[in-house]
This record gives sequence, structure tokens and C-alpha cells, in this order.
Amino acid sequence: MSTTDWTLAARDAAAKLAVDALERDRANAEPLAEAQLLREHRLPGLLLPVEVGGGGGTWADALRAVREVAVADGSIAQLLGYHYVNQANLDWVADAATRERWQRRSGAAQWLWGDAVNPVDPDLTLTPAGQGGYRLNGRKSFATGVSSGDVSVVSGQDSATGRHVLVVVERGAAGVQPGGDWDNLGQRLSASGSVTFTDVEVPAENVLGFLDGDAATPRASLVTPAIQAVFGNFYVGVVRGALQTAAEYTRTTSRAWLLSDSPSAAQDPYVLATYGRLVARLRAAEALADSAGEALTAADAAGDALTWDERGELAELVAALKVVSSDLAVEATSAVFEVTGARATSNRVGLDRFWRNVRTHTLHDPVQYKAREVGDHFLNGTHPEFTLYT
Amino acid sequence: MSTTDWTLAARDAAAKLAVDALERDRANAEPLAEAQLLREHRLPGLLLPVEVGGGGGTWADALRAVREVAVADGSIAQLLGYHYVNQANLDWVADAATRERWQRRSGAAQWLWGDAVNPVDPDLTLTPAGQGGYRLNGRKSFATGVSSGDVSVVSGQDSATGRHVLVVVERGAAGVQPGGDWDNLGQRLSASGSVTFTDVEVPAENVLGFLDGDAATPRASLVTPAIQAVFGNFYVGVVRGALQTAAEYTRTTSRAWLLSDSPSAAQDPYVLATYGRLVARLRAAEALADSAGEALTAADAAGDALTWDERGELAELVAALKVVSSDLAVEATSAVFEVTGARATSNRVGLDRFWRNVRTHTLHDPVQYKAREVGDHFLNGTHPEFTLYT
Amino acid sequence: MSTTDWTLAARDAAAKLAVDALERDRANAEPLAEAQLLREHRLPGLLLPVEVGGGGGTWADALRAVREVAVADGSIAQLLGYHYVNQANLDWVADAATRERWQRRSGAAQWLWGDAVNPVDPDLTLTPAGQGGYRLNGRKSFATGVSSGDVSVVSGQDSATGRHVLVVVERGAAGVQPGGDWDNLGQRLSASGSVTFTDVEVPAENVLGFLDGDAATPRASLVTPAIQAVFGNFYVGVVRGALQTAAEYTRTTSRAWLLSDSPSAAQDPYVLATYGRLVARLRAAEALADSAGEALTAADAAGDALTWDERGELAELVAALKVVSSDLAVEATSAVFEVTGARATSNRVGLDRFWRNVRTHTLHDPVQYKAREVGDHFLNGTHPEFTLYT
Amino acid sequence: MSTTDWTLAARDAAAKLAVDALERDRANAEPLAEAQLLREHRLPGLLLPVEVGGGGGTWADALRAVREVAVADGSIAQLLGYHYVNQANLDWVADAATRERWQRRSGAAQWLWGDAVNPVDPDLTLTPAGQGGYRLNGRKSFATGVSSGDVSVVSGQDSATGRHVLVVVERGAAGVQPGGDWDNLGQRLSASGSVTFTDVEVPAENVLGFLDGDAATPRASLVTPAIQAVFGNFYVGVVRGALQTAAEYTRTTSRAWLLSDSPSAAQDPYVLATYGRLVARLRAAEALADSAGEALTAADAAGDALTWDERGELAELVAALKVVSSDLAVEATSAVFEVTGARATSNRVGLDRFWRNVRTHTLHDPVQYKAREVGDHFLNGTHPEFTLYT
Repeated sequence: MSTTDWTLAARDAAAKLAVDALERDRANAEPLAEAQLLREHRLPGLLLPVEVGGGGGTWADALRAVREVAVADGSIAQLLGYHYVNQANLDWVADAATRERWQRRSGAAQWLWGDAVNPVDPDLTLTPAGQGGYRLNGRKSFATGVSSGDVSVVSGQDSATGRHVLVVVERGAAGVQPGGDWDNLGQRLSASGSVTFTDVEVPAENVLGFLDGDAATPRASLVTPAIQAVFGNFYVGVVRGALQTAAEYTRTTSRAWLLSDSPSAAQDPYVLATYGRLVARLRAAEALADSAGEALTAADAAGDALTWDERGELAELVAALKVVSSDLAVEATSAVFEVTGARATSNRVGLDRFWRNVRTHTLHDPVQYKAREVGDHFLNGTHPEFTLYT
Repeated sequence: MSTTDWTLAARDAAAKLAVDALERDRANAEPLAEAQLLREHRLPGLLLPVEVGGGGGTWADALRAVREVAVADGSIAQLLGYHYVNQANLDWVADAATRERWQRRSGAAQWLWGDAVNPVDPDLTLTPAGQGGYRLNGRKSFATGVSSGDVSVVSGQDSATGRHVLVVVERGAAGVQPGGDWDNLGQRLSASGSVTFTDVEVPAENVLGFLDGDAATPRASLVTPAIQAVFGNFYVGVVRGALQTAAEYTRTTSRAWLLSDSPSAAQDPYVLATYGRLVARLRAAEALADSAGEALTAADAAGDALTWDERGELAELVAALKVVSSDLAVEATSAVFEVTGARATSNRVGLDRFWRNVRTHTLHDPVQYKAREVGDHFLNGTHPEFTLYT
Repeated sequence: MSTTDWTLAARDAAAKLAVDALERDRANAEPLAEAQLLREHRLPGLLLPVEVGGGGGTWADALRAVREVAVADGSIAQLLGYHYVNQANLDWVADAATRERWQRRSGAAQWLWGDAVNPVDPDLTLTPAGQGGYRLNGRKSFATGVSSGDVSVVSGQDSATGRHVLVVVERGAAGVQPGGDWDNLGQRLSASGSVTFTDVEVPAENVLGFLDGDAATPRASLVTPAIQAVFGNFYVGVVRGALQTAAEYTRTTSRAWLLSDSPSAAQDPYVLATYGRLVARLRAAEALADSAGEALTAADAAGDALTWDERGELAELVAALKVVSSDLAVEATSAVFEVTGARATSNRVGLDRFWRNVRTHTLHDPVQYKAREVGDHFLNGTHPEFTLYT
Repeated sequence: MSTTDWTLAARDAAAKLAVDALERDRANAEPLAEAQLLREHRLPGLLLPVEVGGGGGTWADALRAVREVAVADGSIAQLLGYHYVNQANLDWVADAATRERWQRRSGAAQWLWGDAVNPVDPDLTLTPAGQGGYRLNGRKSFATGVSSGDVSVVSGQDSATGRHVLVVVERGAAGVQPGGDWDNLGQRLSASGSVTFTDVEVPAENVLGFLDGDAATPRASLVTPAIQAVFGNFYVGVVRGALQTAAEYTRTTSRAWLLSDSPSAAQDPYVLATYGRLVARLRAAEALADSAGEALTAADAAGDALTWDERGELAELVAALKVVSSDLAVEATSAVFEVTGARATSNRVGLDRFWRNVRTHTLHDPVQYKAREVGDHFLNGTHPEFTLYT
């Protein structure tokens, strides 16, 4: 499939998600039907090689797909974006045989990959259980997609060696207990609640590799700019969704203000200029997201030849996207009420869901620290230290 | 009671409202218990003369009471603020006998006054029914406090003369049908849904007076700057409530960011500066609200001597407050999440209610048109034409 | 030359301009040496076909060159950018023979083209003088590059037919009197003062063509998005120049604030985050400028096949760039003082020139009306009417 | 004189300063004529007791006078405001006899007091010279009013005891060498250049007292909130000056934009709303400045009874004013160009002087650290440590 095809596939999935996005948001259910919809559009396999049943797309394609889905449904865009990064650990961390084995299964069934790696929580414990396998124990307070994904990437600490190991845990494995406790302001369908692991058996074939010390190569550490690029694309998509939804309302429902000389709200000079400023900023953020997508594609293609400097430049570009898209998203999703008017606050309209989604997720890591990182690079030429988080 | 006493009374009521503000917001029930709480603190009678059982307070006191209540509960602050303006029509529009009769009843029972005057809807019809009375028919789509207030001020058009008349309708009058349809993003307890009037009998003694043509004197038209001053004070109060609630969370619950050198979130340089900028703007808005309160007190005291110019200057001061407080309120109530962090988006915390309240109510009339009004006055020396709305 | 080569050539010219940019700004002299510098780098011919002695570059290359020059010197970037658009009228308006004749002369001597077309002034008058020639009379209050350019494009009205005609006037032609009256806050070397034409002879071979009625084709009307794209690139370049100049100062000269825990200004958390936010916005604006450059390249390449819809989409993209870059430029060039400190206000440092340049030029056409245009397109699907201005 | 009288006197002085403010700004001369103008309006003595020939005004009056003068001339407002604080050290630091002696001389001649106390520079050295006198040596890089004031307050370190001592140095004292090196972007007439002291004789009667250790009482440390209150009032005044000057231009000279439906620039919806938002923020800042003036009046009146807590609350109120007025000033003085248009950038108009003045002076101490201070107080209940600076 070409880039255009992927965009169309994502847009088609988005159109279906848009039909009842508000109702599904309120129902706060496990996003199983939505996951199936993504599979039907073959979006989960986009990044996998064609020879294992994947779509052979690029990171630019994947990020664009996240963005398109986010126009309709921020929660499902988060699931899809996190999935791409989780699954890509096969490329970045696993050896060839392990990678191919899991990619084949993943491609065949269009798996969605969840994760339990949140580095702000204490580490999970991986106790050696013989023959290269482990027993997994511990709790993560935020774990997107573990409950709804087909498999999950889990990061834990080897109790014997102290090393950080990435393993795969399959849905329904004994001892995995999702908390079902995600009841937050936004991203309500992202299935991001806690998960507890109790003596979960992790056979050797589920061990992907290490992500620390010498193993934290430029390539392996792409996980962080990749997930941050997902964030930026998802925020930008939500902004477009909010503006398009608002514009439909303004055109069809809003009334001209009684002191306005304009025949309709859609001709009001303030309404027009407010839309215009937000759209202009959106287009800049979209252009930056496109640049970041191309840069990530290139960095991923460089493979083991990727240098720390190149990885650092990519991280800065993505950090700039994070800053710009976060600021815009929070502001634009609140400002849309000013161009739709008082009646648009009715809960029948549900125009607040865009703000709720980005207000919630942009707090993942503080935007001020991302701004500091970008400034430090510009002023002092530094690159951020690698963390799994940001 | 002194100004300080009123402030303390309002603060005491606010403290009681704060205990379960979030739960009450979600229950979306008729605010009857809250109305009773206001009565117990004798806040409804604040503005009435002592000799009719009122508190003898000033408009500055009344607005400050609205602001204090808004720190805890924006919905109830709206009810109280609207009440003051509705009830004040007795001063501004009614003749002496009518005024005294209604003030006595109002003072004795510490009535809360609702209203059905929204000028954006079509006019209600008042059909002469003999002996100076009317039959009232029609529908208003937003009518704050009609369902929960003891009496309401209703604006309608005399079907015979075409004049705009203000009348009083008591709660439980036959033919009054509140829609119970207020299900909006914010101000959920403000009982602001629709109301339908079907052949409601309005006896002559319930007719307050006219509010058009020659009757629209500077004094009578104080209704608009007064209600706009209520808005400004209520927004400013919500901002303080949001910041205080957030500060408690930051101090007790937020964690220092992993890249921060600070030992706690409450020492983080970005957290501190973000609070500082919002607090600085809040203090400026509060100072402006105090100025506006004093100016309204003076304008009201001038009585029939009030000129259009003086009324216009008051309106500009209040409009400036509206602009400043609206902008700050929408921004600050969203920004509080940036100083509390991702976990503060849990619905157990409910920190979004401040944003929902001001995001909803600041759309009452577009802030851009208020800015235009202030600019027109500064640049061209104009005063806004009198409307009931803005 | 490749795209990279052009960027390097422009950067090299910029490096030379940077050496004494502040002194030249203050001297306010005619930019003759600067024009020569551009010629030496063969930048004036960048867009001309190789076969007439030009560089065969694209619009994306040209805009990038403008951006690079603007990093060092906003005035000279304006001259270069205007030149590209003025010269391109040969492509857009002239017939093949006329085009080739002027392109050959232009390419051979690396001419810089000025203009006198400002549509806000009254039209110049072109009185038919026989054999297809005219006499030109009138005054334009702003005319960039007429005094310093080798030739200028002039727009006037045929006194017989009323049609708008584009003609070429060569430097030193009898009757051309530059006002020498450009003494403005910024863009001091842009030679943008008034010019008076008194009975200037315009032979038939200097008549390029019409720019009205049926002649205002999508292609001919590229002049407006092209000049607006020049603006956006020039603003973006100035922002980078301001930030780079400020960063050098912060690193080498600024002191840590006495209440800061940081060992140097360049480590201060507020300094870093302020740079970071500005740089992030700059990168978004640069990405949008790149998109606009590619879109203009494509639209120009489409030639006569270009449709009004395609031209309209290009115009919207460029308008978005105008809005984003204007807002950023005015804000960033003032904010750089906050990261350099009080001593950076010394006139020896001259850090204000960036603000002066963009504060002056961004007023060319009000950014609010550009925002309205973008909003109208997003909301109502409209495209702006063609004017020569905006 | 009443509060109103002082305001009128200041306004009258401002009107005279406004006549040639732009020319004087460019001439960059020593502000001797301006100092005389202030004396003629008896503004220097405003704060002195009536019994020593002063005006008996309050700090609120003094700050208001600074604000009024700043509407016309930021430099002279700085001189006047610094003077009030410098002179007030007589109240805060000196014993009764010393105070009275200097106040009498000051009141009689309507002295203006300069200063050399900048704590960012190294300390000046006061070498004991017998009989309680000193010899003063050293250099201060910024010293407002030393060259133009009648006397100056100088802070130095006693070389024997290490204590910080405030002394008076009279104009023309041998060994005082102003650098004449103030050539900065703004505040060009504020005479804020360097000064070198070489063996200046300081007789015992010129020693005012200590400002460190136990001597740094709440009262003595009023110097810092007082000077910061001066800053806030001066910035607010400049904003009003910029807006009034711009409004005159918009009304008389600006043209309606060609795409505007409005008959004049002064009716353009964007122009009106831009003015309106700036004016609304200005009124809020003015109200806060009034509050701060009253609070400083009260703190000063409390005398030795003033507590550290009360002093801290005052400092926070003033810090809030500093933050709000700085942000507004920098933004508004740049935004005025957007409501006046491109031709207002002509150097004949000189509309940039407002921005230059506040852009320069608001860097005195970083506004981010003031915001941090306000935030720290709100969040953690802290008060800033006393420094002479901020």
C-alpha cells in the first residue's frame, strides 16, 4: 500500500469511529470492537514487513495513520500509536530469530500490542525460572492496552542480574490482572488503567532483549522519540477533529451574535479570525509532524548505523513537535467553544471531549521540561539523556 | 453587618458548599438545599434595606459575596448573583409601593429571585386580562433559578401596547413548567434550563414596571452592568477556587518530575512560576472587581440622578472586568492541570469542574464583543447601547 | 546548482552580511554594496533558466535563500525576495519573446528587480505614446528596490483603456525620482521609500502585459502568494537570526540571576524553557515554510494548467504561514531580551534590530485579515479574491 | 494638596513633557530641564512632611504621580520614582535628627535624589576617615540620577566593620565621576549610566545608617517593595501613554484596510477588539497599582510597628503588580503598531519609544523570578528574603 492508501485506510477507520465517538467515550468500555475495526483496516500490521504479512509501511505512514484516527477518536489513536512503538521493540531490541517469530504471529493476526513499561512506577520483578525464562511480579499504575491488546511488551528487572529486560506477555496469561481502574477525565477508551502481575510465567521465547547499559544503543533507544512522535501526531489529530467538529456546528447551528453586523455566525469577523489563527497554527504543527515522521523513518532505516548524534537530532525535532502540539491542543480544544457559542455546551453536543482528551494526555510528561530540553539543545548543544519516558 | 461580616458569612457558606461540591455537581439535582444554606446565612437579603428585614449591604458587598461563594461552587454563585440583580429590579423599575410590598415579603423569607428574561429568545407574551393583570404565555430556553427560586422576574411584551413589561411570577404558579432540561458541561446546579408559561395569571400587583422607551432610564438600565459585574465576580471567584484546590493537591499529592532537581513538585521552578503568573493576574482581576463593586455601589446610590454618561462609564469598567476575568478564567482553570500533573486527571479528583463552569458561562455573551465595546469607548468615546443582555 | 548548494551560497552571503549588519542598519545608506554581494553569489539569477544564464533553481530554493539571508539581514532579504517575485512576472505575464529577451539581460548581469506596484496608493498613469509605448506619470509612496535595483516592474493604468499594465523601467531612466524618504523603524536598508515618475518614456518592448480581467489567470496571479511566501520566509529567517544572536550573548555575556540556583544564565531553567518554546515554534514555522515552498514550486511548474482552486489552496497555505510567522516574529524578537538580560539593551549590542525589522514589515497587510482569510477558507471553503496586495 | 491635586499637578507636568518627548528622547541629553519642571510642580517634595516644606502626600499619591508622568515620559517617571524611594531612606534608615536635617534641605529646594546602590555590582568601599566620616571609592555600572540629581543615596561597605552603610553624596562633590555612558535602547533620559567614586569625602553628617543585620527591619526594608511599586506604576503609565498616542493616530491618520467593510480604521472590528483587550488589561493593572499604593501607604504609616509578615504581604502584592504590568507593558507597546498600521513605523511618528522604554526597564530583574516569588508565596506561604534589588 502507498502512503496515500494508508491515509485513506486510516481515514476510513476514523469515519467509522466518528459515528459514535461521544457515546463510546461515555460508556467507558473496553475498546474491543474498536480494536477489531483497526484490524479490519489492517492498520496494526502497517509497519511490519510484507513478507510476514505486514503492510510494509514507513514510520511516516504509521504516524499519519495515528493522526487520522485521532481526528475522530483520541483514545483509539493512542492505542494504535502505542501499539506501533510496542511492536517495534521487535526491531530495536530483539535478535533476528525472535523478531521474525513474533512478527509472523503479529502480522498474521494483525495483533495490537499493549505495554506495561511506565518508568515512573517501581520496576516489575523478573525472577529467573530456569531455561532462560522468568516469573513476573509487580504492579504498574498506568498500562495502556494491556487489557485490550493481543500481547503486551513488559519491562522488568532481572532479580539476579539487575538488568532491565523486555518480555512479551500474551493476553489471558495466568496471573495478569488488569485493574479496570481507568476512570479519568479524558482518553477514556484508551484502557490505560493499572495492571498487576502475579507469578506470570514468561518462557524464554518471550524474552525480547535488554534495554540498558550497552544494549541501550541509538537504535534501541528510538523507542522514546517514537512514542513522543506518536503523542505529537495524536495531539495534532485531535486539534483537527475539534476544529472540524466545531466548524460543522458553527455552519449549521450557531447564531450570529445580536450585536454583530454579520448575517450568520459563519461570517462573523471574530469567528473567522479565531478559526484562522487556530488553523494556521494547526497547519504549522502538521508540517512539523510530517518532518518528524520523515526523520523517524530515516533514523529507523539507518538501523545499527544510527549514531547518538543523529538520534539526538531526531529527539529534538520530536520534542519541538511535542511542545508545539501540546500548547496548541490545550488551547484550541478550549477555544472551539468561543466559535460555537453557549448552546454548544449542551452535553448532547459533547464538544468537550477533545479538550478532555488532550488535557489528560499532554500531562504524560510536563511540557515545560520538553521546552527546557529543546532550549538546552539550541543554547548548549546538548542532547537529552535517554530515559524510557521522555 | 459590616463589609467584613458579609465576607465572612459568604466564606462560611462557601466552606459548607465546598465539602461536597463535586458530588453535588455530578448529581445535577435541583439546588434546593443550597438555596436553604444561602438563606441560613442571610445572604439573599444582603441588599435589602434593614427596615424590611434585609441586611442593608452595598452592591460591593453583594458582589464580594458572589465571589466568595464562587470559590467553592460556581453554580450557587450564579444563583446568588442573578438573584441580587433580579430582586434589584424592585429598586430600578417598580414604584415605591410595589417595591416596598415585594421587598417586605422577600426580606422576611430571604427569598431567592430567579428570572426568565433572556433577550436572545423570542419575547414572552403578556395578554391583558383586566384590572391591570395579564396572562403570560411563551417559552424561554434559558431561565436561571425559575425552578429553584422563590419568585422570578419575567420579561414579556404586552400584546396590546407592544411595550416590554417586567412582572413577578411566584414559584408553583399554575401554568409554569420548568423544562428540567439543563444538562450542560458546567454550572450544572444553576438550574438554568428552559421554562414554559401557559396561561399563567399575573395579577396587577405582580407587575413591576416597564423597561423600554422612556422607562429605560440610566437607573433602570443598571440591570445590565449589574449582571455583568456578577459575571466578572463569579469568574474571579472560580479562578481562586481552582488555584486553591490545585495548590492543595500540588502540596499534598503531586510528585516532582523525574528530570527536576527539586525535592518536591511544590518547589519546582516551573510549577512556582506558573502559579505565580496566574495568581498575579488573579490579584489584578480581583482589584478590578473591587473597583467595579465600588462604582456600582455609587451608581446605585445616585438613584434617579444617575446620568447616561455615568452609567456608560460604569458599563465600561464592568466590561473591562468581563474581558479580563473571562480570559483569565478559561486559561487558569485549564492550566491548573499543568501544576498538579497527570494523576490529577482522575475523576476522583474532579479538578475539571472549574474549567467546565467558566467555559460554559463565559459564553453567555461573546467576550470579543465586550472587547470591541471597551475599545470603541477608548477610541471613539462611545457608550454601548442599552440591551438587556450585555 | 543543487538545493543544498543554493542554501550554502545564501548562507555564505549571509555570513558576510552579518559582519556589519548593525552598522549598516544605522547608516541607512543605499544598499548598493549589498546588491553586489548578492550578485557575486549569483543569487539574483537563481530562478532563471540555465539557458539564459540563470541558476535553474526552484521557488523552494529561492524562498530558502531569502530565509537564509534574513538570518543576517532582514532588509537585504526583503530586496532579494521582492526581486524574485518582480522578475517572475516575466514568467507569469509576458509573452515568450518578451520573457526571453528580459531574462537574458537579467541573467547575464544578475540583475536585481525592484518594483512600484503598491496597490494601496492611487494608480500610476500610462499614457499611450505611440507604437505600443507609454509615458509614465505618478507617485508611489512605498517602492522597494526602485532606487537600488537594476530594473523595476511598474504597475500603471492605461489612460486610454483603463487596463492595468505591467511595464519595466530601467534604473537611471529619465524622469524617475526616488524620494530617498525611507526613514522607518525597521528594514532600513530595504530602500523602500517613495518614487515619482514624471513623463518617463516606456518603449513598447518594456511592456510586459496585463494583470486584470481575463489576463488575471491563476498563473498570473501567483504574484500574490509568491510575495506573501517571501514575507513568511523572511520573518522566519529573522526569528532564527534573533535567537542565534541572543544565544551567543547568553552563552558568552549574560550573568546568572542572583536568585537563581544555576551556575550560569545558560543553565537557568527559565532561560532554557523560554528558548525552547521559541525554538519549537520556529521549527514548526520553518516546516510550514518548507511546505509552502514546495507548493509554490509545484504551482509554478503547473504553468497555464494551474486552476483557480489549486491557486486558492496554495494561497491558504501561504496565508497560514503568514499568520504563524508574523505572530512568532513579533513575539520572539521582543522576548530575546528576556533571555539575555538588562545589559543586552545597550545600543552597542543592537539586539533590537530584529524586532524593528519584523515589527515594521509585518504591518504590510494586517495579520488579522490574513487570519480571517484562513478561517473563511476552513469554515466556508472560500478562496480569497485576487488582489495585488494580499 | 489633596490626592486629586497631586494627580492634576503630575498630569500638568506630563502634558508639558509630552510636547517634545520624542525629540528629547533622541537627544539623549542630561535631564536637567526636566528635573526643573518637576520642581516647579513641587512633585519632588510630595512625600515630605508639610512642616519641612513638603507636600504631605502619601505613597499612593507619589506612585500615582509617577504613573501620570510615565504616560508622557518614561525616563522622567523613572527619575521621579527612584527619587521618592531614595529620599524615603531618610524615614526608613536615618535617626530623627539626621532625617529632619536632610528633609529640611530637600524640601526647601525640592531636591531630586539619585542613587548608587545597584547590588548586582560589587560593593563600594567606605574607608573610615575619622569623626564618623568616610572616604568613598569604587564604581557602580548603573546609577540612576547621580548625574542629574541634587544629592544621591549611596550604599557602600565599611572597610573596617564590613557593615553596609547608606550615605548621602551631594552633586558636584569632588571625586564623583559620572560615566556619561548610558546609551541604551530605552529610558534614554533616565541618566542611568555608571559612576565612579574616587576618594570622595563623606562627612559624618552624611551617614544615614545601616541596612543590614538587625538594622534591616521590616520598615527599613520597605525600600524594595517601594522601588518595585515604582516600577509597576511606571510600566502601567507607559502603557496608557502608548495606547493614548496610538489612539490619536488611529483616529486621525490610519486608513481602513482595503479588505475591511468599515468606513475607517477606528471602526474596524479587529482594531476595536485589540484596543479593548489591551485597555481592559490596563484597567486591571491600574486597579492593582491603586491597591498596592494604598498598601504601601499603610505599611509606611505603621512605622516601627510593621511586622515581617505585613511587609511580606505587601511585597507579594507589589510583586503581583510587577508581573502583570511587565507582561502587559511589553506586549501592549508592541501591539500598538497593529492598530495604527504600516505608516506608523515612520521615524517621524516615533511610536516605538514606549516599547523601547519598557523593554529596557522591565529587565531590571527577571519577571520569571518575580512570578516564582508570587507562586512560592501562594503555594508555600513563603515571603521573599530581603535583598536591595527585588
